[in-house]
Amino acid sequence: MGLSHTLEQVGERHVIHEIVAAAPSALNGDDAAVLYPAAPNSRTVASTDMMVEGRHFRRDWSTAAEVGQKAIVRNFADIEAMGARPTAALLAIAAPGDTPVGYVRGIAQGIAERCALYNAELVGGDLTRSDSLVINVTAMGSLGGSGAPLTLDKARAGQTLVAHGKIGYSAAGLALLERFGRALPQELEDLWPLVDAHCAPTLTPGRGVIARATGSTAMTDNSDGLVRDMGLMAQRSSVNIDLDPAAIAPDALLVSAGAVLDVDPWEWVLSGGEDHTLLATTYKAAPSGFREIGQVQRGTGVTVGGEAPRFTGGWESFA
Amino acid sequence: MGLSHTLEQVGERHVIHEIVAAAPSALNGDDAAVLYPAAPNSRTVASTDMMVEGRHFRRDWSTAAEVGQKAIVRNFADIEAMGARPTAALLAIAAPGDTPVGYVRGIAQGIAERCALYNAELVGGDLTRSDSLVINVTAMGSLGGSGAPLTLDKARAGQTLVAHGKIGYSAAGLALLERFGRALPQELEDLWPLVDAHCAPTLTPGRGVIARATGSTAMTDNSDGLVRDMGLMAQRSSVNIDLDPAAIAPDALLVSAGAVLDVDPWEWVLSGGEDHTLLATTYKAAPSGFREIGQVQRGTGVTVGGEAPRFTGGWESFA
Repeated sequence: MGLSHTLEQVGERHVIHEIVAAAPSALNGDDAAVLYPAAPNSRTVASTDMMVEGRHFRRDWSTAAEVGQKAIVRNFADIEAMGARPTAALLAIAAPGDTPVGYVRGIAQGIAERCALYNAELVGGDLTRSDSLVINVTAMGSLGGSGAPLTLDKARAGQTLVAHGKIGYSAAGLALLERFGRALPQELEDLWPLVDAHCAPTLTPGRGVIARATGSTAMTDNSDGLVRDMGLMAQRSSVNIDLDPAAIAPDALLVSAGAVLDVDPWEWVLSGGEDHTLLATTYKAAPSGFREIGQVQRGTGVTVGGEAPRFTGGWESFA
Repeated sequence: MGLSHTLEQVGERHVIHEIVAAAPSALNGDDAAVLYPAAPNSRTVASTDMMVEGRHFRRDWSTAAEVGQKAIVRNFADIEAMGARPTAALLAIAAPGDTPVGYVRGIAQGIAERCALYNAELVGGDLTRSDSLVINVTAMGSLGGSGAPLTLDKARAGQTLVAHGKIGYSAAGLALLERFGRALPQELEDLWPLVDAHCAPTLTPGRGVIARATGSTAMTDNSDGLVRDMGLMAQRSSVNIDLDPAAIAPDALLVSAGAVLDVDPWEWVLSGGEDHTLLATTYKAAPSGFREIGQVQRGTGVTVGGEAPRFTGGWESFA
């Protein structure tokens, strides 16, 4: 049966076969997956995240592989943000009966591609029918050694705030898609990295472990918006986080996109989420792959160069 | 704000607050949950399962608490079916904006209630908006010691097949709901246990661990239908599984419901899934809480008293 057949034409077992063929694992195929500890002295870290078609992705904006890639990156960023190493993922898909088998296979391929970069595997899942396409990924990871995980409540006055990854790119890419769809005019083709950052963000695997190994104490990722996510860390840690305006200023691509769309690119930087950039605090120099973007101080809330942020919005599921 | 308010009225943070208040855990609240091993020499077991409104439950048939209870039991049964102890759950909910906050809180309460029976906790989750209500639970458990998990491929000729839990009750309960809704006529009130078994099945926590500790080698749960689930075990283990017709014969409740609905109750026993009854094979006597229901023999497939089963259907997501 070809991949242009639909789920209801081929049935559940064949679709599961396609998923497992695209993302194979020896741990898959029983009632539950048994994960062997990566090291004798380690803890399991787990996080879950649901993506709904039309809300988190659109089939006309993202390829199936990009949807799978995004699902993995947003989940594994939460594992990395604890200072842990992603090791496994579980995939649950609810899909309409007329969904092409090839689309589901493409999602699994995107998942497998990104999992491979992390040395992780898709170890189990579930498939069911629904009116709209819903993708749930649960990520698991391994926190080695006896040291503490990097939690939101461990930022301390005197530390530096460091970042790994782009900030504002995903929101700018979404704004471009909302204006042009995938038909980005040829003269704007330099802006494709912004669209790519929205459809399938990329982080360098392992940066979370490096941050923990080199003395970071608090970490999270930029999922709801820089000011909002830093605001949560500031609140939990009872500190002020002051962002350095020179370090987070929109780069040439964001400025260019802002000019095209007549949007202040600072809004994307301060309010745009879904970059999944790692944001950590440390008393030491920025770990490899990270750059300094601010300071942790006594006080409360988030400031930019000592001033109130000009944009404070962010992702709200029921706005 | 009252629980009759809707999700879009109160917003994401308030709803999450309600869920966490109903099902509190000290492990919840950061990017990911860190699970401490229950024993030095143990492995993590994980499984995920998605429930879609209208397909796996109906709001006019099940209370919110029952939906939460069912979500936990069907997931924890998969953990138990490996011989492991459920320890934690992650909850992702996609819901329409007009969903009452009280309904989501009720789901969380049902989850907390059942988790408590297992000494497990709801350690994290996700909440987003969608057109239909979708609930995804990921269950995690601990497999103690160095012994093998109870997998589908370890049934051996000469073993006895043993079961813990009802068989056919969930399918009979669904059939009653399809005929009467929740308005079961007063003269049929003896049949409520069947409806309850569909809306919120109950297993005695810990039976999976007991089966493993007492020498069972293979185990699964009755989720898709007795013949279908045993057929998968028979195939993976390259054996025949012969069900004892006297041991699985419909009991008085099933016979009574069959007479009311003019259905052969053997169909519910052989084809009905969602009981999540544990089905294990062992060379020894039935473990505490289990009863003998068949034999493992050389051969292939599933038989009932040596004959081909009269009903072989089962759950199919895209039928």
